[in-house]
Amino acid sequence: MFLPIEVQVLVAMDPIAREMPIAVFDSGVGGLTVLHECLVTLPHEDFVYLGDTARFPYGNHTADELRKFALELTQELVALGTKLIVIACNSATAAALPTLRENLGDRIGVVGVVWPEARLAAEVTRSGRIALVATPATVASRVYERALEEVAPAAKLLSVESSDLATLIQEREEFDEDVVDAVERACEPLREAGVDTVILGCTHYPLVRRIFQRCLGRGVEIVSSGQAISQAVEHELEIRGLKSNSENRGKYSFICTGDPEFFRRAGTRFLQLPLGEVRQHQVIAEDCR
Amino acid sequence: MFLPIEVQVLVAMDPIAREMPIAVFDSGVGGLTVLHECLVTLPHEDFVYLGDTARFPYGNHTADELRKFALELTQELVALGTKLIVIACNSATAAALPTLRENLGDRIGVVGVVWPEARLAAEVTRSGRIALVATPATVASRVYERALEEVAPAAKLLSVESSDLATLIQEREEFDEDVVDAVERACEPLREAGVDTVILGCTHYPLVRRIFQRCLGRGVEIVSSGQAISQAVEHELEIRGLKSNSENRGKYSFICTGDPEFFRRAGTRFLQLPLGEVRQHQVIAEDCR
Repeated sequence: MFLPIEVQVLVAMDPIAREMPIAVFDSGVGGLTVLHECLVTLPHEDFVYLGDTARFPYGNHTADELRKFALELTQELVALGTKLIVIACNSATAAALPTLRENLGDRIGVVGVVWPEARLAAEVTRSGRIALVATPATVASRVYERALEEVAPAAKLLSVESSDLATLIQEREEFDEDVVDAVERACEPLREAGVDTVILGCTHYPLVRRIFQRCLGRGVEIVSSGQAISQAVEHELEIRGLKSNSENRGKYSFICTGDPEFFRRAGTRFLQLPLGEVRQHQVIAEDCR
Repeated sequence: MFLPIEVQVLVAMDPIAREMPIAVFDSGVGGLTVLHECLVTLPHEDFVYLGDTARFPYGNHTADELRKFALELTQELVALGTKLIVIACNSATAAALPTLRENLGDRIGVVGVVWPEARLAAEVTRSGRIALVATPATVASRVYERALEEVAPAAKLLSVESSDLATLIQEREEFDEDVVDAVERACEPLREAGVDTVILGCTHYPLVRRIFQRCLGRGVEIVSSGQAISQAVEHELEIRGLKSNSENRGKYSFICTGDPEFFRRAGTRFLQLPLGEVRQHQVIAEDCR
Protein backbone atom coordinates (compact mmCIF):
# COMPACT_ATOMS: atom_id res chain seq x y z
CA MET A 1 0.00 0.00 0.00
CA PHE A 2 1.27 3.48 -0.85
CA LEU A 3 1.48 5.77 2.19
CA PRO A 4 2.35 9.49 2.44
CA ILE A 5 5.99 9.97 3.47
CA GLU A 6 5.23 11.38 6.93
CA VAL A 7 3.03 8.36 7.72
CA GLN A 8 5.69 5.94 6.50
CA VAL A 9 8.13 7.71 8.81
CA LEU A 10 5.67 7.44 11.71
CA VAL A 11 5.21 3.70 11.16
CA ALA A 12 8.93 3.17 10.73
CA MET A 13 9.55 5.16 13.92
CA ASP A 14 7.16 3.11 16.02
CA PRO A 15 6.79 -0.46 14.78
CA ILE A 16 5.00 -1.63 17.97
CA ALA A 17 2.28 1.03 17.60
CA ARG A 18 0.12 -1.40 15.60
CA GLU A 19 -0.58 -3.48 18.70
CA MET A 20 -1.47 -0.54 20.97
CA PRO A 21 -5.11 0.06 21.90
CA ILE A 22 -7.45 2.58 20.32
CA ALA A 23 -8.73 5.07 22.92
CA VAL A 24 -12.36 6.22 22.92
CA PHE A 25 -13.59 8.97 25.19
CA ASP A 26 -16.99 10.45 25.96
CA SER A 27 -18.79 12.44 28.64
CA GLY A 28 -20.47 9.28 29.95
CA VAL A 29 -21.92 5.98 28.75
CA GLY A 30 -23.48 7.14 25.44
CA GLY A 31 -20.21 6.69 23.55
CA LEU A 32 -20.38 2.97 24.35
CA THR A 33 -22.70 2.61 21.34
CA VAL A 34 -19.74 3.90 19.29
CA LEU A 35 -17.39 1.43 21.01
CA HIS A 36 -19.95 -1.34 20.32
CA GLU A 37 -19.77 -0.72 16.55
CA CYS A 38 -15.97 -0.47 16.67
CA LEU A 39 -15.79 -3.84 18.48
CA VAL A 40 -17.93 -5.47 15.78
CA THR A 41 -16.08 -3.85 12.85
CA LEU A 42 -12.57 -4.24 14.32
CA PRO A 43 -12.69 -7.46 16.37
CA HIS A 44 -8.89 -7.86 16.56
CA GLU A 45 -8.13 -4.38 17.90
CA ASP A 46 -7.73 -3.55 21.59
CA PHE A 47 -9.71 -0.60 22.98
CA VAL A 48 -9.67 1.51 26.11
CA TYR A 49 -12.78 3.59 26.87
CA LEU A 50 -12.77 6.62 29.16
CA GLY A 51 -16.16 7.97 30.30
CA ASP A 52 -16.01 11.37 32.03
CA THR A 53 -19.09 10.58 34.14
CA ALA A 54 -17.96 12.92 36.97
CA ARG A 55 -18.49 15.95 34.71
CA PHE A 56 -21.51 14.62 32.75
CA PRO A 57 -23.35 16.15 30.92
CA TYR A 58 -20.94 18.10 28.74
CA GLY A 59 -23.82 20.27 27.49
CA ASN A 60 -23.62 22.18 30.78
CA HIS A 61 -20.01 23.29 30.23
CA THR A 62 -18.49 26.07 28.10
CA ALA A 63 -16.40 25.26 25.01
CA ASP A 64 -13.30 26.43 26.90
CA GLU A 65 -14.01 24.00 29.74
CA LEU A 66 -14.60 21.16 27.26
CA ARG A 67 -11.27 21.85 25.56
CA LYS A 68 -9.57 21.72 28.98
CA PHE A 69 -11.33 18.40 29.83
CA ALA A 70 -10.46 16.92 26.42
CA LEU A 71 -6.79 17.86 26.77
CA GLU A 72 -6.67 16.41 30.28
CA LEU A 73 -8.34 13.12 29.28
CA THR A 74 -6.22 12.83 26.15
CA GLN A 75 -3.06 13.31 28.22
CA GLU A 76 -4.17 10.42 30.45
CA LEU A 77 -4.93 8.20 27.42
CA VAL A 78 -1.61 9.03 25.72
CA ALA A 79 0.21 8.22 28.96
CA LEU A 80 -1.51 4.80 28.99
CA GLY A 81 -0.36 4.26 25.40
CA THR A 82 -2.69 4.52 22.39
CA LYS A 83 -2.38 4.55 18.62
CA LEU A 84 -5.57 6.49 17.78
CA ILE A 85 -8.02 8.65 19.72
CA VAL A 86 -11.78 8.65 19.09
CA ILE A 87 -14.00 11.42 20.49
CA ALA A 88 -17.36 9.68 20.85
CA CYS A 89 -19.23 12.81 21.95
CA ASN A 90 -20.88 15.60 19.95
CA SER A 91 -20.14 18.45 22.36
CA ALA A 92 -16.49 17.46 22.84
CA THR A 93 -15.97 17.03 19.07
CA ALA A 94 -17.47 20.45 18.33
CA ALA A 95 -15.40 22.16 21.06
CA ALA A 96 -12.09 20.28 21.03
CA LEU A 97 -11.36 18.37 17.79
CA PRO A 98 -9.10 21.04 16.19
CA THR A 99 -7.33 21.71 19.52
CA LEU A 100 -6.60 18.00 20.04
CA ARG A 101 -5.34 17.56 16.46
CA GLU A 102 -3.08 20.59 16.86
CA ASN A 103 -1.86 19.34 20.24
CA LEU A 104 -1.10 15.80 19.10
CA GLY A 105 0.24 16.76 15.68
CA ASP A 106 1.26 13.78 13.54
CA ARG A 107 1.96 11.58 16.54
CA ILE A 108 -1.56 10.25 17.13
CA GLY A 109 -4.62 10.59 14.89
CA VAL A 110 -7.94 11.89 16.26
CA VAL A 111 -11.34 10.83 14.89
CA GLY A 112 -14.47 12.70 16.01
CA VAL A 113 -18.20 12.32 15.47
CA VAL A 114 -20.27 14.44 13.01
CA TRP A 115 -18.10 14.32 9.86
CA PRO A 116 -18.16 10.50 9.55
CA GLU A 117 -21.98 10.47 9.88
CA ALA A 118 -22.34 13.33 7.38
CA ARG A 119 -20.12 11.48 4.89
CA LEU A 120 -22.02 8.20 5.34
CA ALA A 121 -25.40 9.95 4.99
CA ALA A 122 -24.19 11.62 1.78
CA GLU A 123 -23.15 8.20 0.47
CA VAL A 124 -26.44 6.40 1.18
CA THR A 125 -29.04 9.07 0.32
CA ARG A 126 -30.73 8.67 -3.05
CA SER A 127 -32.87 11.81 -3.00
CA GLY A 128 -30.44 14.12 -1.14
CA ARG A 129 -33.15 14.74 1.48
CA ILE A 130 -31.44 13.97 4.79
CA ALA A 131 -32.71 14.51 8.32
CA LEU A 132 -30.91 14.89 11.62
CA VAL A 133 -32.46 13.95 14.97
CA ALA A 134 -30.42 15.24 17.89
CA THR A 135 -30.48 17.07 21.22
CA PRO A 136 -31.39 20.79 21.17
CA ALA A 137 -27.72 21.71 21.80
CA THR A 138 -26.45 19.71 18.83
CA VAL A 139 -29.18 21.06 16.53
CA ALA A 140 -28.43 24.65 17.68
CA SER A 141 -24.69 24.18 16.99
CA ARG A 142 -25.46 23.66 13.26
CA VAL A 143 -22.38 21.45 13.14
CA TYR A 144 -24.08 18.84 10.89
CA GLU A 145 -25.12 21.62 8.45
CA ARG A 146 -21.48 22.70 8.20
CA ALA A 147 -20.29 19.11 7.75
CA LEU A 148 -22.89 18.38 5.05
CA GLU A 149 -22.08 21.62 3.20
CA GLU A 150 -18.53 20.27 2.90
CA VAL A 151 -19.28 16.67 1.93
CA ALA A 152 -22.60 17.00 0.06
CA PRO A 153 -23.34 20.64 -0.87
CA ALA A 154 -26.46 19.66 -2.88
CA ALA A 155 -28.08 17.76 0.01
CA LYS A 156 -30.90 19.31 2.04
CA LEU A 157 -30.85 18.81 5.82
CA LEU A 158 -33.96 18.85 8.00
CA SER A 159 -32.97 19.12 11.67
CA VAL A 160 -35.36 17.89 14.35
CA GLU A 161 -34.57 18.25 18.02
CA SER A 162 -35.76 15.99 20.80
CA SER A 163 -35.44 17.44 24.26
CA ASP A 164 -36.33 14.27 26.18
CA LEU A 165 -35.32 11.20 24.18
CA ALA A 166 -31.68 10.91 25.40
CA THR A 167 -32.78 11.28 29.04
CA LEU A 168 -35.60 8.73 28.61
CA ILE A 169 -33.18 6.21 27.07
CA GLN A 170 -30.69 6.70 29.88
CA GLU A 171 -33.29 6.50 32.67
CA ARG A 172 -35.68 3.77 31.55
CA GLU A 173 -34.18 0.32 31.90
CA GLU A 174 -37.18 -1.09 30.03
CA PHE A 175 -38.46 0.92 27.09
CA ASP A 176 -42.09 1.92 27.52
CA GLU A 177 -44.69 3.89 25.61
CA ASP A 178 -43.05 7.22 26.63
CA VAL A 179 -39.94 6.21 24.69
CA VAL A 180 -42.00 5.11 21.67
CA ASP A 181 -43.97 8.38 21.81
CA ALA A 182 -40.77 10.46 21.92
CA VAL A 183 -39.46 8.60 18.85
CA GLU A 184 -42.85 8.99 17.10
CA ARG A 185 -42.83 12.75 17.74
CA ALA A 186 -39.33 13.05 16.29
CA CYS A 187 -40.28 10.97 13.23
CA GLU A 188 -43.48 12.83 12.33
CA PRO A 189 -41.80 15.79 10.57
CA LEU A 190 -39.35 13.40 8.88
CA ARG A 191 -42.17 11.35 7.37
CA GLU A 192 -43.95 14.52 6.25
CA ALA A 193 -40.78 15.82 4.57
CA GLY A 194 -40.21 12.45 2.86
CA VAL A 195 -36.52 12.22 3.77
CA ASP A 196 -34.79 8.97 2.74
CA THR A 197 -31.88 9.13 5.20
CA VAL A 198 -31.90 9.93 8.92
CA ILE A 199 -28.80 10.71 10.99
CA LEU A 200 -29.13 9.71 14.65
CA GLY A 201 -27.05 12.60 15.96
CA CYS A 202 -26.80 11.47 19.59
CA THR A 203 -24.88 8.46 20.87
CA HIS A 204 -27.86 7.40 23.03
CA TYR A 205 -30.19 6.91 20.07
CA PRO A 206 -28.83 3.62 18.63
CA LEU A 207 -30.52 1.86 21.57
CA VAL A 208 -33.87 2.79 20.01
CA ARG A 209 -32.76 2.45 16.38
CA ARG A 210 -35.35 -0.31 15.80
CA ILE A 211 -38.16 1.86 17.17
CA PHE A 212 -37.03 4.56 14.72
CA GLN A 213 -36.98 1.98 11.89
CA ARG A 214 -40.51 0.84 12.78
CA CYS A 215 -41.71 4.48 12.75
CA LEU A 216 -39.91 5.43 9.54
CA GLY A 217 -40.37 2.21 7.57
CA ARG A 218 -37.73 -0.07 6.03
CA GLY A 219 -37.27 2.28 3.05
CA VAL A 220 -35.51 4.93 5.14
CA GLU A 221 -31.76 4.52 5.81
CA ILE A 222 -30.69 5.22 9.38
CA VAL A 223 -27.13 6.38 9.97
CA SER A 224 -25.63 6.39 13.46
CA SER A 225 -22.39 7.75 14.88
CA GLY A 226 -21.04 4.33 15.83
CA GLN A 227 -21.53 2.79 12.43
CA ALA A 228 -19.96 5.81 10.67
CA ILE A 229 -17.07 6.19 13.13
CA SER A 230 -16.16 2.51 13.05
CA GLN A 231 -15.68 2.84 9.28
CA ALA A 232 -13.69 6.07 9.74
CA VAL A 233 -11.48 4.42 12.38
CA GLU A 234 -10.78 1.45 10.09
CA HIS A 235 -9.90 3.85 7.25
CA GLU A 236 -7.63 5.92 9.52
CA LEU A 237 -5.79 2.80 10.72
CA GLU A 238 -5.32 1.66 7.13
CA ILE A 239 -3.87 4.92 5.83
CA ARG A 240 -1.60 5.16 8.87
CA GLY A 241 -0.52 1.52 8.54
CA LEU A 242 -1.64 0.89 12.09
CA LYS A 243 -4.06 -2.05 11.81
CA SER A 244 -3.31 -4.75 14.35
CA ASN A 245 -1.67 -7.89 12.98
CA SER A 246 -3.28 -9.98 15.70
CA GLU A 247 -5.79 -12.67 14.82
CA ASN A 248 -6.97 -13.02 18.42
CA ARG A 249 -10.12 -11.51 19.88
CA GLY A 250 -9.24 -7.92 20.92
CA LYS A 251 -9.43 -6.86 24.57
CA TYR A 252 -11.27 -3.83 25.87
CA SER A 253 -11.24 -2.05 29.21
CA PHE A 254 -12.98 0.85 30.90
CA ILE A 255 -12.07 3.90 32.94
CA CYS A 256 -14.58 6.38 34.32
CA THR A 257 -14.21 9.54 36.34
CA GLY A 258 -17.38 9.02 38.43
CA ASP A 259 -18.87 6.05 40.26
CA PRO A 260 -17.62 2.80 38.62
CA GLU A 261 -20.70 0.83 39.75
CA PHE A 262 -23.06 3.30 38.04
CA PHE A 263 -20.89 3.14 34.93
CA ARG A 264 -20.92 -0.66 34.87
CA ARG A 265 -24.69 -0.91 35.37
CA ALA A 266 -25.71 1.76 32.86
CA GLY A 267 -22.87 0.92 30.49
CA THR A 268 -23.87 -2.72 29.94
CA ARG A 269 -27.12 -1.60 28.28
CA PHE A 270 -25.24 0.76 25.96
CA LEU A 271 -22.38 -1.61 25.08
CA GLN A 272 -24.64 -4.66 24.46
CA LEU A 273 -21.58 -6.83 25.13
CA PRO A 274 -20.04 -7.99 28.44
CA LEU A 275 -18.52 -4.97 30.19
CA GLY A 276 -16.26 -6.48 32.85
CA GLU A 277 -14.18 -4.40 35.24
CA VAL A 278 -14.24 -0.59 35.38
CA ARG A 279 -11.34 1.42 36.84
CA GLN A 280 -11.85 4.89 38.31
CA HIS A 281 -9.65 7.83 37.29
CA GLN A 282 -9.64 10.96 39.44
CA VAL A 283 -10.14 14.16 37.43
CA ILE A 284 -8.94 17.58 38.56
CA ALA A 285 -11.20 18.31 41.54
CA GLU A 286 -12.23 21.89 40.74
CA ASP A 287 -14.03 20.77 37.54
CA CYS A 288 -16.00 17.95 39.12
CA ARG A 289 -19.74 18.23 39.56
CA MET B 1 -51.98 -6.71 -8.99
CA PHE B 2 -52.79 -10.08 -10.57
CA LEU B 3 -53.95 -12.67 -8.05
CA PRO B 4 -54.73 -16.38 -8.51
CA ILE B 5 -58.50 -16.92 -8.80
CA GLU B 6 -58.88 -18.73 -5.46
CA VAL B 7 -57.13 -15.84 -3.67
CA GLN B 8 -59.31 -13.26 -5.43
CA VAL B 9 -62.34 -15.21 -4.25
CA LEU B 10 -60.95 -15.31 -0.71
CA VAL B 11 -60.42 -11.54 -0.65
CA ALA B 12 -63.84 -10.90 -2.18
CA MET B 13 -65.37 -13.23 0.38
CA ASP B 14 -63.85 -11.45 3.36
CA PRO B 15 -63.15 -7.77 2.69
CA ILE B 16 -62.52 -6.99 6.38
CA ALA B 17 -59.80 -9.66 6.64
CA ARG B 18 -57.15 -7.07 5.71
CA GLU B 19 -57.50 -5.34 9.06
CA MET B 20 -57.36 -8.51 11.18
CA PRO B 21 -54.22 -9.27 13.20
CA ILE B 22 -51.44 -11.64 12.20
CA ALA B 23 -51.04 -14.41 14.80
CA VAL B 24 -47.60 -15.62 15.87
CA PHE B 25 -47.14 -18.63 18.14
CA ASP B 26 -44.15 -20.23 19.81
CA SER B 27 -43.28 -22.51 22.70
CA GLY B 28 -42.16 -19.54 24.81
CA VAL B 29 -40.46 -16.16 24.49
CA GLY B 30 -37.88 -17.00 21.77
CA GLY B 31 -40.38 -16.30 18.97
CA LEU B 32 -40.54 -12.69 20.16
CA THR B 33 -37.36 -12.07 18.12
CA VAL B 34 -39.47 -13.09 15.10
CA LEU B 35 -42.29 -10.76 16.21
CA HIS B 36 -39.70 -7.99 16.68
CA GLU B 37 -38.63 -8.22 13.02
CA CYS B 38 -42.25 -8.41 11.86
CA LEU B 39 -43.07 -5.24 13.85
CA VAL B 40 -40.18 -3.38 12.17
CA THR B 41 -40.96 -4.66 8.65
CA LEU B 42 -44.77 -4.35 8.92
CA PRO B 43 -45.37 -1.36 11.22
CA HIS B 44 -49.02 -0.91 10.20
CA GLU B 45 -50.12 -4.49 10.86
CA ASP B 46 -51.70 -5.68 14.12
CA PHE B 47 -50.23 -8.79 15.78
CA VAL B 48 -51.24 -11.22 18.48
CA TYR B 49 -48.54 -13.43 20.00
CA LEU B 50 -49.22 -16.67 21.82
CA GLY B 51 -46.38 -18.20 23.88
CA ASP B 52 -47.04 -21.75 25.09
CA THR B 53 -44.83 -21.24 28.16
CA ALA B 54 -46.79 -23.84 30.21
CA ARG B 55 -45.51 -26.62 27.93
CA PHE B 56 -42.04 -25.16 27.22
CA PRO B 57 -39.67 -26.54 25.95
CA TYR B 58 -41.21 -28.19 22.90
CA GLY B 59 -38.03 -30.27 22.45
CA ASN B 60 -39.27 -32.50 25.30
CA HIS B 61 -42.48 -33.50 23.47
CA THR B 62 -43.18 -36.00 20.69
CA ALA B 63 -44.15 -34.85 17.18
CA ASP B 64 -47.69 -36.15 17.85
CA GLU B 65 -47.99 -34.04 20.99
CA LEU B 66 -46.65 -30.96 19.15
CA ARG B 67 -49.24 -31.41 16.38
CA LYS B 68 -51.95 -31.58 19.06
CA PHE B 69 -50.63 -28.43 20.76
CA ALA B 70 -50.35 -26.59 17.43
CA LEU B 71 -53.92 -27.48 16.46
CA GLU B 72 -55.21 -26.41 19.88
CA LEU B 73 -53.36 -23.06 19.81
CA THR B 74 -54.34 -22.41 16.21
CA GLN B 75 -57.99 -23.05 17.08
CA GLU B 76 -57.73 -20.42 19.84
CA LEU B 77 -56.05 -17.92 17.46
CA VAL B 78 -58.62 -18.52 14.70
CA ALA B 79 -61.42 -18.01 17.24
CA LEU B 80 -59.84 -14.65 18.19
CA GLY B 81 -59.77 -13.71 14.49
CA THR B 82 -56.59 -13.71 12.41
CA LYS B 83 -55.65 -13.35 8.75
CA LEU B 84 -52.32 -15.24 8.80
CA ILE B 85 -50.60 -17.65 11.20
CA VAL B 86 -46.85 -17.64 11.84
CA ILE B 87 -45.16 -20.59 13.59
CA ALA B 88 -42.13 -18.95 15.20
CA CYS B 89 -40.68 -22.20 16.51
CA ASN B 90 -38.42 -24.82 14.90
CA SER B 91 -39.86 -27.88 16.63
CA ALA B 92 -43.48 -26.87 15.98
CA THR B 93 -42.75 -26.05 12.32
CA ALA B 94 -41.04 -29.41 11.77
CA ALA B 95 -43.87 -31.34 13.46
CA ALA B 96 -47.01 -29.42 12.54
CA LEU B 97 -46.67 -27.16 9.47
CA PRO B 98 -48.24 -29.61 6.95
CA THR B 99 -50.99 -30.58 9.44
CA LEU B 100 -51.91 -26.94 10.05
CA ARG B 101 -51.92 -26.11 6.33
CA GLU B 102 -54.14 -29.11 5.66
CA ASN B 103 -56.41 -28.20 8.55
CA LEU B 104 -56.82 -24.55 7.61
CA GLY B 105 -56.96 -25.13 3.85
CA ASP B 106 -57.25 -21.92 1.83
CA ARG B 107 -58.93 -20.04 4.65
CA ILE B 108 -55.84 -18.87 6.50
CA GLY B 109 -52.21 -19.00 5.36
CA VAL B 110 -49.50 -20.50 7.58
CA VAL B 111 -45.87 -19.36 7.51
CA GLY B 112 -43.24 -21.39 9.40
CA VAL B 113 -39.55 -21.04 10.14
CA VAL B 114 -36.75 -22.94 8.29
CA TRP B 115 -37.78 -22.46 4.63
CA PRO B 116 -37.68 -18.63 4.76
CA GLU B 117 -34.17 -18.70 6.32
CA ALA B 118 -32.97 -21.30 3.81
CA ARG B 119 -34.29 -19.17 0.92
CA LEU B 120 -32.70 -15.98 2.31
CA ALA B 121 -29.35 -17.74 2.90
CA ALA B 122 -29.42 -19.06 -0.68
CA GLU B 123 -30.04 -15.50 -1.91
CA VAL B 124 -27.20 -13.84 0.01
CA THR B 125 -24.42 -16.45 -0.22
CA ARG B 126 -21.73 -15.75 -2.80
CA SER B 127 -19.67 -18.91 -2.37
CA GLY B 128 -22.51 -21.36 -1.65
CA ARG B 129 -20.81 -22.29 1.64
CA ILE B 130 -23.52 -21.83 4.28
CA ALA B 131 -23.47 -22.74 7.96
CA LEU B 132 -26.23 -23.43 10.43
CA VAL B 133 -25.87 -22.85 14.17
CA ALA B 134 -28.74 -24.41 16.12
CA THR B 135 -29.72 -26.56 19.09
CA PRO B 136 -28.79 -30.28 18.96
CA ALA B 137 -32.44 -31.20 18.26
CA THR B 138 -32.70 -28.89 15.25
CA VAL B 139 -29.35 -30.04 13.85
CA ALA B 140 -30.38 -33.71 14.31
CA SER B 141 -33.70 -33.12 12.49
CA ARG B 142 -31.75 -32.22 9.30
CA VAL B 143 -34.67 -29.96 8.40
CA TYR B 144 -32.37 -27.17 7.12
CA GLU B 145 -30.56 -29.70 4.88
CA ARG B 146 -33.90 -30.68 3.34
CA ALA B 147 -34.93 -27.05 2.88
CA LEU B 148 -31.60 -26.09 1.28
CA GLU B 149 -31.72 -29.10 -1.05
CA GLU B 150 -34.99 -27.68 -2.35
CA VAL B 151 -34.03 -24.01 -2.66
CA ALA B 152 -30.27 -24.22 -3.37
CA PRO B 153 -29.20 -27.74 -4.34
CA ALA B 154 -25.63 -26.61 -5.12
CA ALA B 155 -25.07 -25.05 -1.68
CA LYS B 156 -23.04 -26.86 0.98
CA LEU B 157 -24.32 -26.75 4.55
CA LEU B 158 -22.09 -27.06 7.61
CA SER B 159 -24.22 -27.68 10.72
CA VAL B 160 -22.86 -26.76 14.13
CA GLU B 161 -24.80 -27.48 17.30
CA SER B 162 -24.61 -25.54 20.52
CA SER B 163 -26.01 -27.33 23.53
CA ASP B 164 -25.84 -24.39 25.94
CA LEU B 165 -26.21 -21.11 24.04
CA ALA B 166 -30.04 -20.89 24.03
CA THR B 167 -30.19 -21.63 27.77
CA LEU B 168 -27.42 -19.11 28.54
CA ILE B 169 -29.25 -16.41 26.57
CA GLN B 170 -32.52 -17.14 28.34
CA GLU B 171 -30.96 -17.25 31.84
CA ARG B 172 -28.38 -14.46 31.82
CA GLU B 173 -29.99 -11.04 32.00
CA GLU B 174 -26.56 -9.52 31.35
CA PHE B 175 -24.36 -11.24 28.82
CA ASP B 176 -21.04 -12.31 30.32
CA GLU B 177 -17.93 -14.14 29.15
CA ASP B 178 -19.74 -17.51 29.25
CA VAL B 179 -22.08 -16.28 26.51
CA VAL B 180 -19.18 -14.90 24.45
CA ASP B 181 -17.30 -18.20 24.90
CA ALA B 182 -20.32 -20.23 23.75
CA VAL B 183 -20.60 -18.06 20.63
CA GLU B 184 -16.82 -18.31 20.04
CA ARG B 185 -16.97 -22.12 20.27
CA ALA B 186 -19.81 -22.21 17.73
CA CYS B 187 -17.97 -19.85 15.39
CA GLU B 188 -14.62 -21.65 15.40
CA PRO B 189 -15.57 -24.40 12.89
CA LEU B 190 -17.39 -21.81 10.75
CA ARG B 191 -14.27 -19.67 10.45
CA GLU B 192 -12.15 -22.73 9.67
CA ALA B 193 -14.59 -23.80 6.93
CA GLY B 194 -14.63 -20.27 5.47
CA VAL B 195 -18.43 -20.07 5.15
CA ASP B 196 -19.76 -16.70 3.94
CA THR B 197 -23.32 -17.06 5.30
CA VAL B 198 -24.50 -18.24 8.71
CA ILE B 199 -28.10 -19.16 9.58
CA LEU B 200 -28.99 -18.56 13.22
CA GLY B 201 -31.34 -21.53 13.49
CA CYS B 202 -32.78 -20.78 16.92
CA THR B 203 -35.05 -17.87 17.81
CA HIS B 204 -32.95 -17.10 20.92
CA TYR B 205 -29.78 -16.33 18.94
CA PRO B 206 -30.66 -12.90 17.46
CA LEU B 207 -30.06 -11.48 20.96
CA VAL B 208 -26.36 -12.29 20.49
CA ARG B 209 -26.24 -11.57 16.76
CA ARG B 210 -23.65 -8.81 17.32
CA ILE B 211 -21.41 -11.16 19.31
CA PHE B 212 -21.62 -13.58 16.35
CA GLN B 213 -20.79 -10.72 13.95
CA ARG B 214 -17.76 -9.74 16.05
CA CYS B 215 -16.56 -13.38 16.05
CA LEU B 216 -17.22 -13.95 12.34
CA GLY B 217 -16.18 -10.55 10.96
CA ARG B 218 -18.22 -8.09 8.87
CA GLY B 219 -17.63 -10.13 5.70
CA VAL B 220 -19.94 -12.95 6.83
CA GLU B 221 -23.70 -12.54 6.29
CA ILE B 222 -25.87 -13.57 9.23
CA VAL B 223 -29.42 -14.74 8.50
CA SER B 224 -31.97 -15.06 11.29
CA SER B 225 -35.48 -16.50 11.43
CA GLY B 226 -37.11 -13.17 12.24
CA GLN B 227 -35.56 -11.31 9.36
CA ALA B 228 -36.42 -14.11 6.88
CA ILE B 229 -39.95 -14.67 8.21
CA SER B 230 -40.84 -10.99 8.22
CA GLN B 231 -40.07 -10.92 4.49
CA ALA B 232 -42.04 -14.15 3.94
CA VAL B 233 -45.02 -12.73 5.86
CA GLU B 234 -44.98 -9.54 3.80
CA HIS B 235 -44.85 -11.61 0.59
CA GLU B 236 -47.70 -13.86 1.78
CA LEU B 237 -49.89 -10.85 2.63
CA GLU B 238 -49.18 -9.34 -0.78
CA ILE B 239 -50.06 -12.43 -2.81
CA ARG B 240 -53.20 -12.95 -0.71
CA GLY B 241 -54.17 -9.27 -1.02
CA LEU B 242 -54.28 -9.03 2.75
CA LYS B 243 -51.95 -6.11 3.58
CA SER B 244 -53.54 -3.68 5.99
CA ASN B 245 -54.68 -0.39 4.50
CA SER B 246 -54.08 1.38 7.79
CA GLU B 247 -51.47 4.11 8.07
CA ASN B 248 -51.52 4.07 11.87
CA ARG B 249 -49.01 2.36 14.10
CA GLY B 250 -50.12 -1.29 14.42
CA LYS B 251 -51.12 -2.72 17.80
CA TYR B 252 -49.75 -5.91 19.33
CA SER B 253 -50.84 -8.03 22.27
CA PHE B 254 -49.71 -11.12 24.14
CA ILE B 255 -51.17 -14.34 25.43
CA CYS B 256 -49.22 -17.00 27.29
CA THR B 257 -50.18 -20.34 28.74
CA GLY B 258 -47.88 -20.10 31.79
CA ASP B 259 -47.10 -17.34 34.30
CA PRO B 260 -47.80 -13.93 32.68
CA GLU B 261 -45.30 -12.13 34.95
CA PHE B 262 -42.48 -14.45 33.86
CA PHE B 263 -43.51 -13.94 30.24
CA ARG B 264 -43.53 -10.15 30.60
CA ARG B 265 -40.14 -10.01 32.32
CA ALA B 266 -38.29 -12.44 30.03
CA GLY B 267 -40.22 -11.31 26.96
CA THR B 268 -39.16 -7.66 27.14
CA ARG B 269 -35.52 -8.67 26.53
CA PHE B 270 -36.50 -10.74 23.49
CA LEU B 271 -38.96 -8.23 21.97
CA GLN B 272 -36.69 -5.19 22.44
CA LEU B 273 -39.82 -3.04 22.29
CA PRO B 274 -42.37 -2.20 25.02
CA LEU B 275 -44.34 -5.34 25.87
CA GLY B 276 -47.36 -4.07 27.78
CA GLU B 277 -50.08 -6.36 29.12
CA VAL B 278 -50.01 -10.16 28.89
CA ARG B 279 -53.18 -12.26 29.11
CA GLN B 280 -53.15 -15.86 30.30
CA HIS B 281 -54.83 -18.65 28.32
CA GLN B 282 -55.48 -21.99 30.01
CA VAL B 283 -54.31 -24.97 27.95
CA ILE B 284 -55.70 -28.49 28.30
CA ALA B 285 -54.51 -29.52 31.75
CA GLU B 286 -53.24 -33.03 30.98
CA ASP B 287 -50.57 -31.65 28.62
CA CYS B 288 -49.19 -29.09 31.05
CA ARG B 289 -45.80 -29.55 32.67
